[in-house]
Amino acid sequence: MSTLRHVLPIEPLNAGAFRRYGDVIEAGDSAERFTVNQGSATRYHDLAKVDVAAEHGHPVISIFRAQPCDLPLHLRLLERHPIGSQAFIPMGNQPYLVVVAAPDKPLYAEHIHCFRASPGQGVNFARGTWHHPVLPLHSVCDFLVIDRGGPAKLPNCEEHALDELELWIEA
Amino acid sequence: MSTLRHVLPIEPLNAGAFRRYGDVIEAGDSAERFTVNQGSATRYHDLAKVDVAAEHGHPVISIFRAQPCDLPLHLRLLERHPIGSQAFIPMGNQPYLVVVAAPDKPLYAEHIHCFRASPGQGVNFARGTWHHPVLPLHSVCDFLVIDRGGPAKLPNCEEHALDELELWIEA
Repeated sequence: MSTLRHVLPIEPLNAGAFRRYGDVIEAGDSAERFTVNQGSATRYHDLAKVDVAAEHGHPVISIFRAQPCDLPLHLRLLERHPIGSQAFIPMGNQPYLVVVAAPDKPLYAEHIHCFRASPGQGVNFARGTWHHPVLPLHSVCDFLVIDRGGPAKLPNCEEHALDELELWIEA
Repeated sequence: MSTLRHVLPIEPLNAGAFRRYGDVIEAGDSAERFTVNQGSATRYHDLAKVDVAAEHGHPVISIFRAQPCDLPLHLRLLERHPIGSQAFIPMGNQPYLVVVAAPDKPLYAEHIHCFRASPGQGVNFARGTWHHPVLPLHSVCDFLVIDRGGPAKLPNCEEHALDELELWIEA
């Protein structure tokens, strides 16, 4: 193993730690909630800021079928969406990792964070939040994705290469 | 058992059968799909018509924690949302039932349909589609819900009592 490696610590995902990057989507105690459907369901209400309407955008629902990652993993790329939020909610119970960086700081290793999602937790990347593609840990994972559709002439994906950082996630 | 009962057949859920009521949200062969994230994921793209922007609306992401139903079940009520679509995607693999009726026909028993969702299938009720609250079959089920937020002065829920129909779902 190279001594140049920077190993990213894996932090538990929770709303407080993730606030500067977006929302944690979960049926948690801090959510506004009320009873609906004649008492047969509880609605945990308005869990994410869906920010897709600027520049003639509209919400799009898709499914991402993501391959699991192998650890140790060399992180090579972050991406971000400058005119839209993007939410990922797992359609199963597989754990996955979320790698993010805030838009207002240089992309140095110390500004990049890795969170481990627990079953039942989704994330919503705020507009402009740098993020790695989601990283299922053990098996293929389907994520429901809510992001922005709109005129193709408005680019909504920027990429940033990380190769020089030698940034790794270990098991 | 009363001879007046009308027992609703349970049909398999698929896009064709559900088209007049909305969309089936699933990673299916008929979806537009393409590779994303440097080959690590497949995006099944734009699976539902999110129709929430009329009348100053915006998309809202919530979680419904729904109690399972007991069969036989007497259906007492349908509801609909006249100014917005509403999508339900299970966050686990529990089977559930979906009861719907199109907005353009009288709510007679023969116009009401019951579908059984398979694992990995969500539904999006089109604006105006009559529907029963989702019905998990065996255990509590969390659904991700994408529906409409907007000014409270614009009501977006109508209810219709079904008691006189004696409409039942049996195991």
